[in-house]
Amino acid sequence: MPKIVDHEARRAELAAAVWRLASRDGLDSLTMRRVAAEAGWSTGALAHYFDDKEELLVFAFQTVADRVGRRIVKAAEHTRDPLELVRTQLVEGLAIDSERRAEVRVWFAFLGLAETQPRLAKAGRDAYRLWRERVAKTLAAAQRQGLVDNAVDLKREAAALIALVDGIAIQATFDPRAVSAERQLELLDDHLARLAIASAR
Amino acid sequence: MPKIVDHEARRAELAAAVWRLASRDGLDSLTMRRVAAEAGWSTGALAHYFDDKEELLVFAFQTVADRVGRRIVKAAEHTRDPLELVRTQLVEGLAIDSERRAEVRVWFAFLGLAETQPRLAKAGRDAYRLWRERVAKTLAAAQRQGLVDNAVDLKREAAALIALVDGIAIQATFDPRAVSAERQLELLDDHLARLAIASAR
Repeated sequence: MPKIVDHEARRAELAAAVWRLASRDGLDSLTMRRVAAEAGWSTGALAHYFDDKEELLVFAFQTVADRVGRRIVKAAEHTRDPLELVRTQLVEGLAIDSERRAEVRVWFAFLGLAETQPRLAKAGRDAYRLWRERVAKTLAAAQRQGLVDNAVDLKREAAALIALVDGIAIQATFDPRAVSAERQLELLDDHLARLAIASAR
Repeated sequence: MPKIVDHEARRAELAAAVWRLASRDGLDSLTMRRVAAEAGWSTGALAHYFDDKEELLVFAFQTVADRVGRRIVKAAEHTRDPLELVRTQLVEGLAIDSERRAEVRVWFAFLGLAETQPRLAKAGRDAYRLWRERVAKTLAAAQRQGLVDNAVDLKREAAALIALVDGIAIQATFDPRAVSAERQLELLDDHLARLAIASAR
């Protein structure tokens, strides 16, 4: 029992150190040596957790995904309306404040690397599959409550909504003045409103 | 006159070499030495064109943007219907065949790097501004012809359409089976259909 607690506490410590480094200095900073220094560990202790840099990057990616996932779960506790929950599941992917902007930066830097590294590519693929499943599941609840038309293909709609959010976050990252937090939310809400309008036909 | 021709021919030669390297081996392969070798130039001759690696990356990014831009211009010559032209301007950003998949891979790898490199970030920002302007301009033509409702905010709609296309391309890159070429086009056409439906109300 104490061993498991130790292990989880140490993983959380590591995740925090990796996140501080990645968000502050970019993914280039994620070397075994720098992560060990940031966590206050020896590189030997770190090598117990990661075989190589690619594993470290997958862990960093998972750390970002977990941060976002935890916020969604927390928000879901206070949300009864499934369409509002869909919105929550999507807003967490937008670059609307400094914390989320940092997450988006790390996320897309990771995706850039993932294209040439198979384990990162698998982590990316799995993350998007999980996200699509979650959104589709919430949309299904909305459909059961008559908030979304039965003709809407939920898997397809989930993919479109997530695509929209990702693309908004990209434009916002490069042009925060033209694509402000307010504009980002407008673009998402435009799409959600059309989805709801479709149900009212 | 011959000097200009030489210069442009040599730039085109360089662009082709940079594209071959980047699409085959990723952005890591874009070192002065490897680009010179691929183009059959001396590194001294290459140094005449690029001061450093960041300039080389900006050039590579511009090369991808130019490839896409040329295809759009060419397609526009045969397209009278502005809504069809909007579709063409967007389809070129999807990962629907091997050529476009390679472009998307290079594009997002570049965006990943751009987050920490100011000149790349500017190139990214400018590319998205230009893309938004072009799409908004074509949407304006559609609006003048009564194909899109006058209430639609064109700049906002252009940003949403481009966001959707970018996000679709990301999911397709990581999961080509789940997000096939056919599915990518469906997702875009769903959105365009809703835009056109809005005009028919």
